Amino acid sequence: MANKAKQHGLVLRPHFKTHQSAVVGEWFKDEGIKQITVSSVQMAKYFAQNGWEDITIAFPLNIREIDDVVRLANQVKLNILISSPETAQLVAEKVNISLSYFIKIDAGYGRAGIVPENTEKIQRIIETINQNKSVAFKGFLAHFGNTYHAHNKEEVLRIYDESKERLIKLKNRFLSDFPNLILSIGDTPSATLTNDFQGVDEIRPGNFVYYDLMQYYIGACTFDKIAVALACPVVDVYPERNEILIYGGAVHLSKEYSIDYQSNKTYGQIVSLNENNWQVPETKPYLKSISQEHGIISVHPDFLKSIKIGDLLGVLPVHSCLTADLMRQNGGFLILE
Amino acid sequence: MANKAKQHGLVLRPHFKTHQSAVVGEWFKDEGIKQITVSSVQMAKYFAQNGWEDITIAFPLNIREIDDVVRLANQVKLNILISSPETAQLVAEKVNISLSYFIKIDAGYGRAGIVPENTEKIQRIIETINQNKSVAFKGFLAHFGNTYHAHNKEEVLRIYDESKERLIKLKNRFLSDFPNLILSIGDTPSATLTNDFQGVDEIRPGNFVYYDLMQYYIGACTFDKIAVALACPVVDVYPERNEILIYGGAVHLSKEYSIDYQSNKTYGQIVSLNENNWQVPETKPYLKSISQEHGIISVHPDFLKSIKIGDLLGVLPVHSCLTADLMRQNGGFLILE
Repeated sequence: MANKAKQHGLVLRPHFKTHQSAVVGEWFKDEGIKQITVSSVQMAKYFAQNGWEDITIAFPLNIREIDDVVRLANQVKLNILISSPETAQLVAEKVNISLSYFIKIDAGYGRAGIVPENTEKIQRIIETINQNKSVAFKGFLAHFGNTYHAHNKEEVLRIYDESKERLIKLKNRFLSDFPNLILSIGDTPSATLTNDFQGVDEIRPGNFVYYDLMQYYIGACTFDKIAVALACPVVDVYPERNEILIYGGAVHLSKEYSIDYQSNKTYGQIVSLNENNWQVPETKPYLKSISQEHGIISVHPDFLKSIKIGDLLGVLPVHSCLTADLMRQNGGFLILE
Repeated sequence: MANKAKQHGLVLRPHFKTHQSAVVGEWFKDEGIKQITVSSVQMAKYFAQNGWEDITIAFPLNIREIDDVVRLANQVKLNILISSPETAQLVAEKVNISLSYFIKIDAGYGRAGIVPENTEKIQRIIETINQNKSVAFKGFLAHFGNTYHAHNKEEVLRIYDESKERLIKLKNRFLSDFPNLILSIGDTPSATLTNDFQGVDEIRPGNFVYYDLMQYYIGACTFDKIAVALACPVVDVYPERNEILIYGGAVHLSKEYSIDYQSNKTYGQIVSLNENNWQVPETKPYLKSISQEHGIISVHPDFLKSIKIGDLLGVLPVHSCLTADLMRQNGGFLILE
């Protein structure tokens, strides 16, 4: 991803919400990365403490946290997101330190932000904040989260192209007044699959550090690119129903599920763990159901015969961000070099 | 629940995985509760540190944790679950301290344990552990988790009656050899709804401490019994699509969803928060979708008009156990007396 960004003259500002780990952050430093994205003030504080000095909080400012944001802006170069004139007004009144902001644009996902055609509202935000000269307009930021609902590469690229086109129009409209404004986009599926970054200045993919089953099913990565597994102890085996019980449930993996290539609802793909890597068993066992701590793996009888109580099995998660968030909290994080 | 247990001559051994809180645990002490259930060794340690001296770990023993279990059995009266002769053999060999065990029975849920009719396997476990005189057979334990998939009270009670009947037969078969053996059951839906505890010695409901939307939809509680809400800041309002953006997502609520009375997929019911309670707005807004930190509430235009950025809205969770687990980790737990 770092090479791709370089090749296209883009700033890569990776989203660190996927790993939330200072150690993994160091790998990015090795690639020359100096600017990062996070999704909460708490996460921004964590990475600021770990030496990161240029941070975008890619979540529309929660005005209840404005004092914390101002304190943090004293320590690092901070970019925040604004999507409403009301929040803009409060920022204009309260912020007394150098801070930059993006206007959060909704380019089709329908989650957060202003639609790019609503230039009246965008103009109003810029004018409101302009009262406060310490707060600088940095540009437009969007997340094409609807690519996560795509079923194949073509669909991802169609969403990307349509969303980008709307953003480029917006950018061009404001470029004469703000010649330095930047356009920041870049979810993992489209950043991985596209080669058309015309008009884009910055990308913020995050999930690509591990990828996961969801990315694989979307077509955003090959299977061998999945780089995170949850090691789960086998607690019981049930030959009579071709199932294995593991200690591994919703408090470790989250309840995110996917539909696999055989139309099974799955909470994870099972892999055999070796010392430094893993393999998919030929019969492709999968995590069929989970509750708080229990996981039930559906298996072929041949695979079941090879497993005994106390073995460790790996689970490739459906959504690595949520699994990493849960395991970080549980202190269960092990990095294989 | 404490009164109901007393009335029926049952031991109430509440499941503390729902709240995982020493403070909430104190409320149970006030009701005379001295015995508790947890779902992990880690949780058993936490409550042992907080003065609980009689703990059942209601998860089939993970043999990789046997040393921890033995250490803990030095400090408190500990009951573990066994469901396989292999694990029984290891326990017989490794345990050198007074410990009790239940045999985990699968009475129809199909998750963990031995079916009650497989008395040969049950006998084998008892004989295996019997080699070690410090490990005592306490009885049979089952969790009717399939009641969580019921759609109404009648279905819950049908599952309960059928499952209990199978267990009573099992109990009676072993009662002459083990006159002190007990039968421990008691998921929240059936423990709340039934009044037939004939043959049952102990119940272990946990979720009832808060209940949640899922219990409400099953018919296990009335709406006013739901006793936990996540307070979420309003970050933006979107009149053009009748939606509100809150700071509240999968890392706070989990991705558990339910289908509400209007056939909407919902991640939570929205309530207005007052100082010491909450109310459901007349137009019944609900949490329509969530991602890692974002939540989107679907609202009626009238409700939207009453909300401004920075307000707090309450979310009644679909599954309170998972929400409490996440918020405990985030340190975001506030108890209203």
